[in-house]
Amino acid sequence: MRVLGIDPGLRNLGWGVIDVSGSRLSHVANGVCHSTGDDLAQRLLSLHIQLTEIVARFAPDTAAIEQTFVNKDGVATLKLGQARGIALLVPAQAGISVGEYAPNRVKKTVVGVGHADKGQIAHMVKMQLPGANPASPDAADALAIAICHAHYTRGGQELREAGRVQA
Amino acid sequence: MRVLGIDPGLRNLGWGVIDVSGSRLSHVANGVCHSTGDDLAQRLLSLHIQLTEIVARFAPDTAAIEQTFVNKDGVATLKLGQARGIALLVPAQAGISVGEYAPNRVKKTVVGVGHADKGQIAHMVKMQLPGANPASPDAADALAIAICHAHYTRGGQELREAGRVQA
Repeated sequence: MRVLGIDPGLRNLGWGVIDVSGSRLSHVANGVCHSTGDDLAQRLLSLHIQLTEIVARFAPDTAAIEQTFVNKDGVATLKLGQARGIALLVPAQAGISVGEYAPNRVKKTVVGVGHADKGQIAHMVKMQLPGANPASPDAADALAIAICHAHYTRGGQELREAGRVQA
Repeated sequence: MRVLGIDPGLRNLGWGVIDVSGSRLSHVANGVCHSTGDDLAQRLLSLHIQLTEIVARFAPDTAAIEQTFVNKDGVATLKLGQARGIALLVPAQAGISVGEYAPNRVKKTVVGVGHADKGQIAHMVKMQLPGANPASPDAADALAIAICHAHYTRGGQELREAGRVQA
């Protein structure tokens, strides 16, 4: 089973692809989509094009995205929401289920505690995915989300069911 | 010139199409896209499919969307942001410029004051677009956004320039 993890953002959208075979995880690829364009619509289009190419190239069986931490900064939340809309749309267009996980669930699954910093996450991602060298903290987070999804879709649970796990 | 106005929302996305010829405006069509699906990704996909069909059917030359009023309700802002991402993406995919207008700019243009209620907006939309019978308040708002965009793209301004008007 191949899993695509996505860490959404308007400027930088991290992504990571892993393969899952029984209890064995292996790294396939990771990277960051940088949005380009003069206005918001063009930037969202640029993210859509890049992410669609990634889905076509790596053909994941399922995808996962982090649930957004909603803070008091409404402008930042709106920007993130718009990028997140694209990140959810692209797998859906390819007919792939999209799991959503809270950030502390991802951290607890990958690092063992719910309040890990980015350095700890990158370290544990490299430990669990030999050969992985995340392109950036956003790409490391995306691989962590993919690992979390792999964890919850293992063990005989149906993918569709696990895709709805809410941490 | 044909203008598509969009009032974004995750449950109900209002849309309205008008034709502009000199100072004359005429109503073409309006409606509401209701999202369907079991999860968020499916609902966004459903909005994308419906809005893409509307753009293909009515072939607008330009589009406009209301700038989102960011409030303290982060969860609502995030939901709206996700739907707004789709509403911005679809015209961009069709190669159409997307103007953005603050809600009070739309109201001031259509009603004459910046703090009009939905009833006043619907009334003035009907006055300015004879024969228009908005399907809902969301559709009336979408027609108001289209009227606002027509106003700012008239008078010799280049469409691309007007598409960037920030109220």
